[in-house]
Amino acid sequence: MRASQYLLSTLKETPADAEVVSHQLMLRAGMIRKVAAGLYTWLPTGYRVLKKVETIVREEMNKAGAIEVLMPVVQPADIWEESGRWEQYGPELLRIKDRGDRDFVLGPTHEEVITDLIRNELSSYKQLPLNFFQIQTKFRDEVRPRFGVMRSREFIMKDAYSFHTSQESLQKTYDDMYKAYSAIFTRVGLDFRAVRADTGSIGGSSSHEFQALADCGEDDIIFSTESDYAANIEMATALAPSGTRASPSKTMELVDTPNAKTIDELVTQFNLPIEKTVKTLVVKASKNSEHQLVALLVRGDHTLNEVKAEKLDLVATPIEFASEEEIRQIIGAGPGSLGPVNLNLPVIIDRDVAVMSDFGAGANIDGKHYFNINWERDVALPTVADIRNVVEGDASPDGKGTLLIKRGIEVGHIFQLGTKYSQAMNATVQGEDGQNHVMIMGCYGIGVTRIVAAAIEQCNDERGIVWPEAIAPFSVAIIPMNMHKSAKVQETAETLYTQLQAAGIEVFFDDRKERPGVMFADSELIGIPHTIVIGERNLDNGEVEYKHRAGGEKEMISIDNIIEFIKHKAQ
Amino acid sequence: MRASQYLLSTLKETPADAEVVSHQLMLRAGMIRKVAAGLYTWLPTGYRVLKKVETIVREEMNKAGAIEVLMPVVQPADIWEESGRWEQYGPELLRIKDRGDRDFVLGPTHEEVITDLIRNELSSYKQLPLNFFQIQTKFRDEVRPRFGVMRSREFIMKDAYSFHTSQESLQKTYDDMYKAYSAIFTRVGLDFRAVRADTGSIGGSSSHEFQALADCGEDDIIFSTESDYAANIEMATALAPSGTRASPSKTMELVDTPNAKTIDELVTQFNLPIEKTVKTLVVKASKNSEHQLVALLVRGDHTLNEVKAEKLDLVATPIEFASEEEIRQIIGAGPGSLGPVNLNLPVIIDRDVAVMSDFGAGANIDGKHYFNINWERDVALPTVADIRNVVEGDASPDGKGTLLIKRGIEVGHIFQLGTKYSQAMNATVQGEDGQNHVMIMGCYGIGVTRIVAAAIEQCNDERGIVWPEAIAPFSVAIIPMNMHKSAKVQETAETLYTQLQAAGIEVFFDDRKERPGVMFADSELIGIPHTIVIGERNLDNGEVEYKHRAGGEKEMISIDNIIEFIKHKAQ
Repeated sequence: MRASQYLLSTLKETPADAEVVSHQLMLRAGMIRKVAAGLYTWLPTGYRVLKKVETIVREEMNKAGAIEVLMPVVQPADIWEESGRWEQYGPELLRIKDRGDRDFVLGPTHEEVITDLIRNELSSYKQLPLNFFQIQTKFRDEVRPRFGVMRSREFIMKDAYSFHTSQESLQKTYDDMYKAYSAIFTRVGLDFRAVRADTGSIGGSSSHEFQALADCGEDDIIFSTESDYAANIEMATALAPSGTRASPSKTMELVDTPNAKTIDELVTQFNLPIEKTVKTLVVKASKNSEHQLVALLVRGDHTLNEVKAEKLDLVATPIEFASEEEIRQIIGAGPGSLGPVNLNLPVIIDRDVAVMSDFGAGANIDGKHYFNINWERDVALPTVADIRNVVEGDASPDGKGTLLIKRGIEVGHIFQLGTKYSQAMNATVQGEDGQNHVMIMGCYGIGVTRIVAAAIEQCNDERGIVWPEAIAPFSVAIIPMNMHKSAKVQETAETLYTQLQAAGIEVFFDDRKERPGVMFADSELIGIPHTIVIGERNLDNGEVEYKHRAGGEKEMISIDNIIEFIKHKAQ
Repeated sequence: MRASQYLLSTLKETPADAEVVSHQLMLRAGMIRKVAAGLYTWLPTGYRVLKKVETIVREEMNKAGAIEVLMPVVQPADIWEESGRWEQYGPELLRIKDRGDRDFVLGPTHEEVITDLIRNELSSYKQLPLNFFQIQTKFRDEVRPRFGVMRSREFIMKDAYSFHTSQESLQKTYDDMYKAYSAIFTRVGLDFRAVRADTGSIGGSSSHEFQALADCGEDDIIFSTESDYAANIEMATALAPSGTRASPSKTMELVDTPNAKTIDELVTQFNLPIEKTVKTLVVKASKNSEHQLVALLVRGDHTLNEVKAEKLDLVATPIEFASEEEIRQIIGAGPGSLGPVNLNLPVIIDRDVAVMSDFGAGANIDGKHYFNINWERDVALPTVADIRNVVEGDASPDGKGTLLIKRGIEVGHIFQLGTKYSQAMNATVQGEDGQNHVMIMGCYGIGVTRIVAAAIEQCNDERGIVWPEAIAPFSVAIIPMNMHKSAKVQETAETLYTQLQAAGIEVFFDDRKERPGVMFADSELIGIPHTIVIGERNLDNGEVEYKHRAGGEKEMISIDNIIEFIKHKAQ
């Protein structure tokens, strides 16, 4: 590509409205432009990268035996009503009407369409397993689109859906997808982790997220220092506390604490170690419980893990915190003065709370706390469960090492869906036994557009983007010095451009009448891995200058060898 | 691809709701399935063809120097308001609201988005010309979606937009696009014609449609028998009538015609030759005319060409026919009794009407016609213009041969847009003179999904689709006879499958436990160009059977030569 016939659109200044480095660099490098909130046009440089990511995703999906299809962006409401998601899905689902006032949605995902298709096309277990994928535009009406294409409203996703008649078959495809995803993220050059994830509202039994490590990531991901244990914050567990509870050493006392409504205030005002305090959180009880509310207790320095709490039979799903009014009505005290002693609610305590002794908590009387509470002596030991988020330094659940927490950008997600959709939509095939069986499903997503942003988060320096070779918009930049004044420089540049292209290498030939400084800055900003600088003086020595974007020193290369040299480098 | 791991989804029966052969065959061959009116899922076989078409389009656009971008499907209303199309575009433009009640559209085309982008990114004439393309999903809320993907609501289009500072530059890119389009349609194997077209509501000065010839086409296209003249019906002109008007031979007479309100009735009841009758059509006059209505006269056997009529200064655009009430109010007679004699309206007559003599027309008195009217003797000769549709047999306007009419499917369209959008949206660059100049634009569209249907319309027989090599879903079918009973057949089939794939050939290996008849029928239905049949008896002679889908005879090929043979055939 000749720069003179290209839309480079680089910017010198960092746009004020871009918070994260990938968004800033995508704007500065002329990769994207905003059309409206969460809607972007991919400019030529951005599109070249996007297409390379898409190609890698497609190749690995094909290799894993998935079959490509294309489903419509606009989907009729009736299948969403059938699956139940027309009601369940929040306002992120953009519901629209056509000219005949019929209801449609802009597809945020395609479970309904594929399930509807497959229930019509398949009749026998002999046709299974099958795994279908598409690379298609999706729409989610995010309440706060942000970080450029990282969380945009319109985006490109690779989504796949597999169909099975047995859990073993699903597990095999799931494992194949796990491997394919690992291959994809490795090929695009991401530093990523596959972490165990909650299946959440999509349902199903097993799930992994593929997280690209990055400080700006929106997810907390957890690893062991010593093993391959990895999970997202929702799923991560620590090793259960070892040892037994210390015996009581002090008498329980009722203390006036009029100005201590939070753990912080309690700790500061009464000089209590935070590990000797307990937080009491009150949530709605599940419908089939005889109670209205349930109390959940975690140590003062821990936080409640809502996903874990939701899995408790007693707790309503989705989790809902009781209002101050509801708490007062039933307990007779405000949320800042609650605790396990004399509490007229079912209580569930975290495993770490169960091993505490001589601890402080609210007295269920406004302005009062009990200090030196001890289980069994002062109050019966309630139900114990793992209901907290892990913290850095917790013991890994496999007993190997301790837990670290990093931030991740979710770039992929694989689910064992089970029969959530196939049951609701009656998607069956005849089994070996002649009976109809509801198919078992898996689903597998990759945020294609998001990968581009994630790669930039990981690969940049003060001068711009440092692309991994596999997804760079161009492989080689040719920068001729004062080409418009030197016939020799021009001739060499043109020859090199032709020869490199003939060798199948993607070349950005900066043939603009610009100062060398401008050309270097642009080439470094858009992150082209290899740069060849052509100057008259070096040509007199039969040489050109080579520089690798990732930080290598300049090298002088003989003009006779440069093609082979680049072919070797740009692999 | 192994059939056992693929979704073939062929149908034996022709679906009742599919009117045209391409729609029928796309359903039968398992290429598409309807999701809702005008919305389709592309099944694996269909998607493979679509992807090949897309690749050819992309390659030729790149070769022609166009630069690929990707613009969003969902577009904000404000730019549509700026261009004026928010108001002008009919209900085919699907207007939607996001969760914040802001107005958006599902893009039927992207002039606004690209013009908005380019006015922000470009500043100087030095950066031009540039031509941008995308291959993107579009939505048009057709009132009557039909013929499958031929006229669907959601479809894939390649659209391109070029920007210039001079008409010469636009003409050059336009010519390049003309050549690129010709290359694309040639490569995909279509029998097509580039025809001159009206620029219509998109505006601009010059336009060509690329029409795939097919009986089911929705457009009339016109060619010369002897020259390369070609135009669509809206634009086609015949050679002006030669010779002069014959002298009057009869006296004009007023005839009672109480039951003749149409040309047909007049011809039948009074035994008049239809070429001796004239039709009088009354339309609204343009706003800046002093008249309310205008009469347009064409010969009884001709029809009015509304596009030509709209180009007359006197006629309102868009053309609007006067109601019977309006006609009666001004003329004093009904629409079935109108004619040029004593008509109190401005009159424009077709060129062929101007050379008529002794002709019949309404008398502007209900139930009466004049017969044997002659220009100049009975009524002054009005303004003469070409306002009729050509008919088969008309002389070609270049004087070479006569005109033929065929039906076409519009698969591409190129426009010289001029400044319609750039003016409305103030898209300017600084010119060589230091002043701001509104950019001149071209736009160039290809119906990517429609090409697939058009190809099938042209390439099918009673057994199914007969794909052109370049866009076939698979190049070669391997059909083993009774493979599950013969180790030798199975081994040969597997080896051949592996070897052909290694040679880069796309193979459909029918490894199902099906009768040979079923396998042949499926392979022929989905239109695979080359079939290799492997049977035990032939293997004993060291041979396999080869058959070309387009109708070649069976050939026996030595098993040692089959790879080279296929490599040669499948180019």
